[in-house]
Amino acid sequence: MKITVWNENRHEKTNPVVAEVYPEGIHGAIAEALAETGHDIKTATLDEPEHGLTEEVLNETDVLFWWGHMAHHEVDDAIVERVHKRVLEGMGLVVLHSGHFSKIFKKLMGTSCDLKWREADEKERLWVVDPSHPIAKGIGEYIELPKEEMYGEHFDIPAPDQLVFVSWFEGGEVFRSGCTYQRGNGKIFYFRPGHETYPTYYNKDVQRVLINAAEWVSPSNRPYPTYGNAKPLEEISKKD
Amino acid sequence: MKITVWNENRHEKTNPVVAEVYPEGIHGAIAEALAETGHDIKTATLDEPEHGLTEEVLNETDVLFWWGHMAHHEVDDAIVERVHKRVLEGMGLVVLHSGHFSKIFKKLMGTSCDLKWREADEKERLWVVDPSHPIAKGIGEYIELPKEEMYGEHFDIPAPDQLVFVSWFEGGEVFRSGCTYQRGNGKIFYFRPGHETYPTYYNKDVQRVLINAAEWVSPSNRPYPTYGNAKPLEEISKKD
Amino acid sequence: MKITVWNENRHEKTNPVVAEVYPEGIHGAIAEALAETGHDIKTATLDEPEHGLTEEVLNETDVLFWWGHMAHHEVDDAIVERVHKRVLEGMGLVVLHSGHFSKIFKKLMGTSCDLKWREADEKERLWVVDPSHPIAKGIGEYIELPKEEMYGEHFDIPAPDQLVFVSWFEGGEVFRSGCTYQRGNGKIFYFRPGHETYPTYYNKDVQRVLINAAEWVSPSNRPYPTYGNAKPLEEISKKD
Amino acid sequence: MKITVWNENRHEKTNPVVAEVYPEGIHGAIAEALAETGHDIKTATLDEPEHGLTEEVLNETDVLFWWGHMAHHEVDDAIVERVHKRVLEGMGLVVLHSGHFSKIFKKLMGTSCDLKWREADEKERLWVVDPSHPIAKGIGEYIELPKEEMYGEHFDIPAPDQLVFVSWFEGGEVFRSGCTYQRGNGKIFYFRPGHETYPTYYNKDVQRVLINAAEWVSPSNRPYPTYGNAKPLEEISKKD
Repeated sequence: MKITVWNENRHEKTNPVVAEVYPEGIHGAIAEALAETGHDIKTATLDEPEHGLTEEVLNETDVLFWWGHMAHHEVDDAIVERVHKRVLEGMGLVVLHSGHFSKIFKKLMGTSCDLKWREADEKERLWVVDPSHPIAKGIGEYIELPKEEMYGEHFDIPAPDQLVFVSWFEGGEVFRSGCTYQRGNGKIFYFRPGHETYPTYYNKDVQRVLINAAEWVSPSNRPYPTYGNAKPLEEISKKD
Repeated sequence: MKITVWNENRHEKTNPVVAEVYPEGIHGAIAEALAETGHDIKTATLDEPEHGLTEEVLNETDVLFWWGHMAHHEVDDAIVERVHKRVLEGMGLVVLHSGHFSKIFKKLMGTSCDLKWREADEKERLWVVDPSHPIAKGIGEYIELPKEEMYGEHFDIPAPDQLVFVSWFEGGEVFRSGCTYQRGNGKIFYFRPGHETYPTYYNKDVQRVLINAAEWVSPSNRPYPTYGNAKPLEEISKKD
Repeated sequence: MKITVWNENRHEKTNPVVAEVYPEGIHGAIAEALAETGHDIKTATLDEPEHGLTEEVLNETDVLFWWGHMAHHEVDDAIVERVHKRVLEGMGLVVLHSGHFSKIFKKLMGTSCDLKWREADEKERLWVVDPSHPIAKGIGEYIELPKEEMYGEHFDIPAPDQLVFVSWFEGGEVFRSGCTYQRGNGKIFYFRPGHETYPTYYNKDVQRVLINAAEWVSPSNRPYPTYGNAKPLEEISKKD
Repeated sequence: MKITVWNENRHEKTNPVVAEVYPEGIHGAIAEALAETGHDIKTATLDEPEHGLTEEVLNETDVLFWWGHMAHHEVDDAIVERVHKRVLEGMGLVVLHSGHFSKIFKKLMGTSCDLKWREADEKERLWVVDPSHPIAKGIGEYIELPKEEMYGEHFDIPAPDQLVFVSWFEGGEVFRSGCTYQRGNGKIFYFRPGHETYPTYYNKDVQRVLINAAEWVSPSNRPYPTYGNAKPLEEISKKD
């Protein structure tokens, strides 16, 4: 499987706290976490030509991870269209944390993807609500993160095709934190945690979820469906 | 309830066959069918200023019906944004037949909304697959339409939140013909039948579905959710 | 609409704390809350002949509320079958709190319906996660209950057809607290709150949910589907 | 993976037509089709002691296939409970064709599982409605079976968690033919085709679906969730 980890990579350059937590960038940390799978892992970032997501790169990508936040608006619409097309063709997509507000996620969801948020060093506990789901494999009853940004309901997304995790937050909110969607030939997973100032992507349970998610969204590699004008498969009776 | 029936109203002007079937336009036929409900029914068409969908009209619309086909691309993006915003705020939306390819439906679905099609005067039978659903109230086991355009799978939509009808076509295809979606504060129903050259919207069962659908998508009239930065509801412990 | 509120009515007889909170029984409190709808409200309890759920009573019931806890095993299997049949025929069912472990709910769900629980006077906050849903109409962003029993995930139910509420608990758990299901001609709503020692059913928001739920589960009054051997609707070709 | 193919194995003994089509029994044909996976395949039949489904056999079974028809009522309730428990613990279950009326499927679904049927040598075409689904991998736009028994809607099942196939029948009906369900730790797939008098299980596409289904329902091998009384994970405030 060929995985491309895309990251905006801006906080890392401008905020020393983030740079210290993620010296190789959030993409670097995620790529390293995925490396144990033996899959072919590459990274791509916003400031590369075509954001590192050329036709060639995307055509060879089975699964794309997406982390973005402060520069969603800088992502070129043409690249968003390209990623969208690839998802409908079958490429898996894992959208992380503040990626909820990325152009590609909003385009795929069709909603505002808005939510409540708060940065207050608070505890998050992600409960497994679907223990049969492959993305929860190897995870106990919950994942506990001592400090995270809060995201709270209402989260303006379509009802997930499958709801895998629900978060509890110290400050009194809940959140649908692990959501699957199937769109066209493609599969999508949204996973909530991962604020840039916390070492969340080094957490072993979070890493396990990322690995499981890559597996779950991986494409079936089937032809794109045939659309448009279609000859009948059965004889149609003559009518008056 | 205030209902606005929107129609492109172009086939009616250019194709005498359509003009004969729908002398008052497709919007006129639908408006008349809905009139028996006692609701306040208005119509709007593409060639009116702002397509007849001014801020004022939309703000007063509880349920919007949408029929379009040959001129989807002429619908102004700003109006599409306006309708989209209103749906997330709670306005109900009923998308009909070739409206599957309208900008507003594609934006709300996030997929290509593509499908197979064929014009061959063939029989369609829409089976009720969810008899508990209010939209199927008063409908027998199926609706039979002697001549309709065929729409066939794969229909590139998100899996419906609820699947109410599945169509059988004489030529050998099936289609998910009655699909509900909940998005933000709003509810959406897609209903397949209604090709412009057939008298489908005079069919009593089809009319019953339109009336039921208007009822089902009608808004709850609740405030738009509060999004953005949120104060904690519970005390958050101090951490190192 | 004819509503029957069924209650085990045992805690009220044996526990003075419960008797004080619900002097007319939990069924009495719920019936009174529903009375403002103008619907025809009756009650039935475990110790009546046939648990008050005779063929006649059930045949005339549009919506059945169910509260049970300590005596689930005393509910006669024949009555459970009778209620089950009526739900598939279209009768609405609202299952409350500890009714999660009732024979009828387990039979309809097909799972263990098990969960975590704790009685510790803790705060519950039920967040609306589907603001478009009629059952949430008139409810703010959440319902807050100062003291309730905790129910925690994993809740062993089928993924709800629609998830309306998710609870936050002071002690660190979450719970899918408002769940809809459609089964046969019937609609079901499970609503979590309502431990017998707390005045939960006097809470105005909880009462609003019960009223909305009765409306939402109310039957379409359509004939039971035709099953069994079926004549073809189209000619079937002769084959070798 | 350890797969057990369970078959009633009665038609094969009493009907020479069936015996000719399936000389090794339906279970034999399915086991042979699955053999190419390299998994450990065993069979079990109704007339063996404990129907071949002893505690030991089930505890070692990762995925159970189920074909039954004329003798559903002879399946011992205790064995049904045993299978049910194993599914909730994580064992995958693939229910085939007339298995829709088996005790285990009805118990897991909670509905009557009733449907329309007809034996008339008619053509079935199973359309893929979810091309992203792993169970459809390697299947074209549809599977065509020249002669099959018809099953028609309404099919009285819970709305599937995922709908993969919808059947078109020559005689005018449609059917939800490939349905997934997740229950507890376990995953279930219902697949419609496979009437005993037709060579359906020798069809390469049908075999591909069975192989994919075995993979998809295979367990995550996680511990059974902890239920019952639970200590708080956070401090609960003292209240008056």
